[in-house]
Amino acid sequence: MVILNLIAWRKKNKVIHSYIEQKQKQINQSLVRELDQLELPLDLKDALLYATKAGGKRLRPVLMMASFEAFNHSIEKVLHPALALEMIHTYSLIHDDLPAMDDDDFRRGKHTLHKKYDEATAILIGDGLLTYAFQVVSNSDQLDAEEKVYVLQQLSQASGFEGMIAGQHLDLQGENQSLEEQELNRVHQLKTGALIRSAVKIGAYLGGATPPQIESMDQFASYLGLIFQIQDDILDVSGEMDVIGKPVGSDEEKNKSTYPQIMGLEQAINMKESYMNKAKEKYSEANINQPILLELLEVFGNRDA
Amino acid sequence: MVILNLIAWRKKNKVIHSYIEQKQKQINQSLVRELDQLELPLDLKDALLYATKAGGKRLRPVLMMASFEAFNHSIEKVLHPALALEMIHTYSLIHDDLPAMDDDDFRRGKHTLHKKYDEATAILIGDGLLTYAFQVVSNSDQLDAEEKVYVLQQLSQASGFEGMIAGQHLDLQGENQSLEEQELNRVHQLKTGALIRSAVKIGAYLGGATPPQIESMDQFASYLGLIFQIQDDILDVSGEMDVIGKPVGSDEEKNKSTYPQIMGLEQAINMKESYMNKAKEKYSEANINQPILLELLEVFGNRDA
Repeated sequence: MVILNLIAWRKKNKVIHSYIEQKQKQINQSLVRELDQLELPLDLKDALLYATKAGGKRLRPVLMMASFEAFNHSIEKVLHPALALEMIHTYSLIHDDLPAMDDDDFRRGKHTLHKKYDEATAILIGDGLLTYAFQVVSNSDQLDAEEKVYVLQQLSQASGFEGMIAGQHLDLQGENQSLEEQELNRVHQLKTGALIRSAVKIGAYLGGATPPQIESMDQFASYLGLIFQIQDDILDVSGEMDVIGKPVGSDEEKNKSTYPQIMGLEQAINMKESYMNKAKEKYSEANINQPILLELLEVFGNRDA
Repeated sequence: MVILNLIAWRKKNKVIHSYIEQKQKQINQSLVRELDQLELPLDLKDALLYATKAGGKRLRPVLMMASFEAFNHSIEKVLHPALALEMIHTYSLIHDDLPAMDDDDFRRGKHTLHKKYDEATAILIGDGLLTYAFQVVSNSDQLDAEEKVYVLQQLSQASGFEGMIAGQHLDLQGENQSLEEQELNRVHQLKTGALIRSAVKIGAYLGGATPPQIESMDQFASYLGLIFQIQDDILDVSGEMDVIGKPVGSDEEKNKSTYPQIMGLEQAINMKESYMNKAKEKYSEANINQPILLELLEVFGNRDA
């Protein structure tokens, strides 16, 4: 029986990984197509494509698409919002990597934008990607005006002053300080959690979820965001550079508080498991007859990069 | 007769200046009210209010409101878009002033944000203001969904890659290079012109202008943008620091091409006059029975700060 279960698990795992790969491919292609049509000075275009092709897991748009597909099949509707979300995420990484911020030279195993080009270019490309995210949604030919407004409200709130901006500010302030678990949760809920929640909410809303379903999904996403961050911290302690694409131990080097540091590695892993159970509860409250998001939860919660 | 004309001119001039002051006051109050309600870490809030209260002419929102009032009286409708526009303008100044960009220590006679605080704060406040601009419009209780979408399309396009971003990039590239008149026009049409045009177009659209009227107004605004920039360059050569709020000659110091430099001061003044006549022609094509925008043209074209 154990062997049979393992075979079933491998098969299921293969299905979800091919689902993720298929979505990633769709996002990568659409992203390049969308940005490549811009008429820009050549060096600016070059930098923009470098920043966009640098890759990454495309977690947020994959999540939004999966959340949409939990309710609906016509995936075209969610494509522009998904691209916008990835543009916002990409801009935030570019600016966070700047010398005045986290001062990172590598990202996903490649030079960060300001190392490859210069700081002015990195600031401008970030600004442009943020702006283009809102442009892509407001110009979408797949959404009606009400839908556009909902998407824009969610994205701007999640990435704005009371979301990602405050999170990055608190994260920078938190360097060389020892944060309590609650403070650390707050930093991550703002810095990465808000955007992950917006991914799931927008997907569910556009897919046709009811307000109570959106509410349950939002709580599911809230746990997912924390799980993702705890796993990030765990990987920074125990991962390998050639897999995670940046130097191991870079959090410690910057004296940033991490979950393993404030509670120990084992306890951090336990906490992650407990959040995964809570996320599953919330998901079942939404009454969705579609397991993709639960499988994504497993994959992202146990990822090794 | 000459004396009588002069009295009439002074009276008219007084009216337009009190119009501008009244709008500036309304914008300043609404801007602070809008931003003050944000729940932010205290030091971030402090920096945000410093950046916003630094003042300035509020040219763009005044223009948008005047353009709206050329067609309509219920001014509440245009307030959120006007605030958003000023937020975008403010963000662009904050980022342009950064050491990696124009490296300016003073703006409007006060320390720039990164000098008063630090670079990370200036990057974040800029990012946040840009994002909040889109949030304020998408959450407005004064606009319907179609109107919001129009405003967001215009703002994102004007401030995006193919507008302000490309303009700032070309402006930076243009340092230490001698540009032709046409290239210089292109830089300014992108860097400042696009946003000024969006101000006038959004105002006219929300006010109820017909498509041909919006088109004429757009061309009017296109000249206005160039006039504004030529006057900026003229002031950089011939203005006074305590009036313009930044060191005179800072363009020359950075080896930036300016209109007076490539064609001489006198010719630059002549060109400005000729654009002012063209702007008036376009304005009369729009068939508006309201002189405020023409008076604004005179005021901004001949301003001394």
